[in-house]
Amino acid sequence: MNTHNASTPQVDNSVTHQQALCSTYKGAPALLTDMYELTMVDAAILAEKKTGKPVASRASTFEIFSRRLPNERRYGVVVGVGRFLDQLQDFRFTDNHIDYCRDFLSEDTLEWMRNYRFTGSISGYREGELYFPGSPILTIQGTFAECVVLETLALSILNHDSAIGSAAARMSAAADGRTIIEMGARRTHEESAVAAARAAYIGGFTSTSDMAAGYRWGLPIGGTAAHAFTLLHTTDKQADEKEAFRNQVAAMDTNTTLLVDTYDITQGVANAIEVAGPELGGVRIDSGDLGVLARQVRQQLDSLGAHNTHIVVSGDLDEFSIAALRAEPVDAYGVGTSLVTGSGAPTAELVYKLVEVEGQAVAKRSSHKETRGGAKQGFRTARDTGTMVSEIITPMGAPEPDTGTLQCEKLTIDYVVDGVVQDDLPTLDDARELLYNNLRQLPWEGLSLSRGEPAIPTEFQGF
Amino acid sequence: MNTHNASTPQVDNSVTHQQALCSTYKGAPALLTDMYELTMVDAAILAEKKTGKPVASRASTFEIFSRRLPNERRYGVVVGVGRFLDQLQDFRFTDNHIDYCRDFLSEDTLEWMRNYRFTGSISGYREGELYFPGSPILTIQGTFAECVVLETLALSILNHDSAIGSAAARMSAAADGRTIIEMGARRTHEESAVAAARAAYIGGFTSTSDMAAGYRWGLPIGGTAAHAFTLLHTTDKQADEKEAFRNQVAAMDTNTTLLVDTYDITQGVANAIEVAGPELGGVRIDSGDLGVLARQVRQQLDSLGAHNTHIVVSGDLDEFSIAALRAEPVDAYGVGTSLVTGSGAPTAELVYKLVEVEGQAVAKRSSHKETRGGAKQGFRTARDTGTMVSEIITPMGAPEPDTGTLQCEKLTIDYVVDGVVQDDLPTLDDARELLYNNLRQLPWEGLSLSRGEPAIPTEFQGF
Repeated sequence: MNTHNASTPQVDNSVTHQQALCSTYKGAPALLTDMYELTMVDAAILAEKKTGKPVASRASTFEIFSRRLPNERRYGVVVGVGRFLDQLQDFRFTDNHIDYCRDFLSEDTLEWMRNYRFTGSISGYREGELYFPGSPILTIQGTFAECVVLETLALSILNHDSAIGSAAARMSAAADGRTIIEMGARRTHEESAVAAARAAYIGGFTSTSDMAAGYRWGLPIGGTAAHAFTLLHTTDKQADEKEAFRNQVAAMDTNTTLLVDTYDITQGVANAIEVAGPELGGVRIDSGDLGVLARQVRQQLDSLGAHNTHIVVSGDLDEFSIAALRAEPVDAYGVGTSLVTGSGAPTAELVYKLVEVEGQAVAKRSSHKETRGGAKQGFRTARDTGTMVSEIITPMGAPEPDTGTLQCEKLTIDYVVDGVVQDDLPTLDDARELLYNNLRQLPWEGLSLSRGEPAIPTEFQGF
Repeated sequence: MNTHNASTPQVDNSVTHQQALCSTYKGAPALLTDMYELTMVDAAILAEKKTGKPVASRASTFEIFSRRLPNERRYGVVVGVGRFLDQLQDFRFTDNHIDYCRDFLSEDTLEWMRNYRFTGSISGYREGELYFPGSPILTIQGTFAECVVLETLALSILNHDSAIGSAAARMSAAADGRTIIEMGARRTHEESAVAAARAAYIGGFTSTSDMAAGYRWGLPIGGTAAHAFTLLHTTDKQADEKEAFRNQVAAMDTNTTLLVDTYDITQGVANAIEVAGPELGGVRIDSGDLGVLARQVRQQLDSLGAHNTHIVVSGDLDEFSIAALRAEPVDAYGVGTSLVTGSGAPTAELVYKLVEVEGQAVAKRSSHKETRGGAKQGFRTARDTGTMVSEIITPMGAPEPDTGTLQCEKLTIDYVVDGVVQDDLPTLDDARELLYNNLRQLPWEGLSLSRGEPAIPTEFQGF
């Protein structure tokens, strides 16, 4: 496999901040907002002006959580908080934005937009943490107005990134330590692709095909050749696969991976080893019955003395087909469509709800959409062995729950305090490692790919 | 409904180009690329240098097409070409990009990147055009190197935007002329959301909740209030829905839409009319059995003299539930999750394949993945009544096919000729109108929401 790592194998988040200079969002995220957030702010500001009593400025707590896990999965993975915090710091309305809103917002609200910066506090779960129905993933506190305008941006980022991260975790768990490569950029929006690669890395993927993801986030990147490269070597209507392989090996060394299924796979493998010799890095198969082909190709490679040549498979893989290939001689999986579309759950279905106003718990009561009021914090209990037992949710600020002989760990950390993004927040590698450890501490049913109950129960105490 | 239209109800694409000043991609799209495209270019450039024969510079034709329609749908909708052309014009590798690639590409290739600009030609289907399996949606012609690096960007945009546009068309057809509002920004990546709103507009949606989509693309925007606004009006643990409605009406006029399902819907409707009077613009119901509720609420509104107050429904709607509500007194649909996730088909599964090299048709022969070689153009035949009969694909440049008494229209237009983006390309409103007319010219089975055959057959002639 030819992979390329930005500079060092460690993802250093300082690189991220340096490379945020080429972030696509500088100064622009404030309009990544739904119109009703601004009209609500407008109504609240005007009401406050008219009555002289706090409305827009009422102390409010919003919470991001999920009512259920999509497709009856056993766990979700929190991803996206880092991206949200990056954009929060650029969340300013420009003069052009304000002009654009002039004919549907009052002058008071336009003035409020001009001065907007988030001065409240944000706490929540770490990236790479598991979540379950009701987990208080992110808590945003401040005035109603300053918090409500963040709804769409926060949800967009967390819903997308957590959906991809959750799918990635299932896939990398199924891959069980084998190399797993993210190559789905072409199957999703060009900017989603970059975020998806980041989420996949947290989810345990080895590398990504997406150059921008490598560039912006310091992720390991990889890639060799497509069918087009082999087809390019056609002269007088005669295909010349060997010439294509020769040219690739000349440029990329024998450690490269050759794509052997453009014409006939058996001939492709023979050509690959003839050209590159038995030290060839790998061959890739992108079509057909991958299990059967992997066995045949392994046999053929071994018979040619290419015992160390890896077999990379790709083509509509998801966590189920990855798991189904466990017994086959596959060294690496390339995953595209199913990863970037969340493998059947393209959005995490997280919601952003007002749960507390001036210290009072609030909740709506529409059918099937109850919200539990009050600001919250989360704890995880575990046995001595590390195996998770339950999640306990208590009112924010309450003392640590008494869990007897069980270990108890607080899941909620401070991200932003009074408008200041905290130092020493977890890095991408911290998130990846946290998830890796989390998956190993799930009760054994928790890693099941089949539909069922959440891996651990969630208990609400003190509400 | 309170909607706001950027400046004029017509979407003028000149606005787009003016507002491209706030495009997020200026100068950045060139790395929205898979690594293997650059390594293929590198291998081709080095081979050309070594052999003295054209390799990287071979005249090549790549084609974007779909092998099948997702979920056995009857048609697909082409969306995204305009966004691709915008980014094509900014497709340059910066010095930072080139430095980033320095340790895995040769100096010759880095120099090629430094000078990169697309000098080839692009032709294809209009945005808003229908496509079927095998339709040559976009044809990219130039040197191998200059075309192959566009693969990921072109596919990302067309796969995402066409998936959303195709879902939008099914939904707006099901809405059958009723107002249909895009409100899915929070359920997808923040930039996908903006592109999704654009695709939904082409697909026939009335407006979007997404401010950035209105700002960048001149789309009509709309939105009023969320449950949070009602919940904000809670004092001493007493909810005050009427005060919330009063404050919203004061800011937004009686023409606004009040969200009536925070607590009890019947009480909410009574409160809404008490506060706003029978001239209230609308009420929104976001939960429960929407059909049953719409009937009850209509009856209640009528009994209160609010005969012109519209009923807006939202909450997990897709094309099937929209169709199921046809007989109910619903005036407008708000659609979120299912729209932005492509309603079960989050990607259009379009592929980008090399089909011709130096005038020779090329095609791979892996199992189940045959490609038909040769550059192509598309025609649509129709009866005198306008009803579509078939799609005919012929070699690019071949004369118009003889279709007897059937009308025959060429579907392929020039987008870029020798590196120059053509003037007078279709606008967003052209695309919306084209799709509107197309949907009315489908054979009647073509509008069926159920799984089945493509609405019309595709014939390949002259291959």
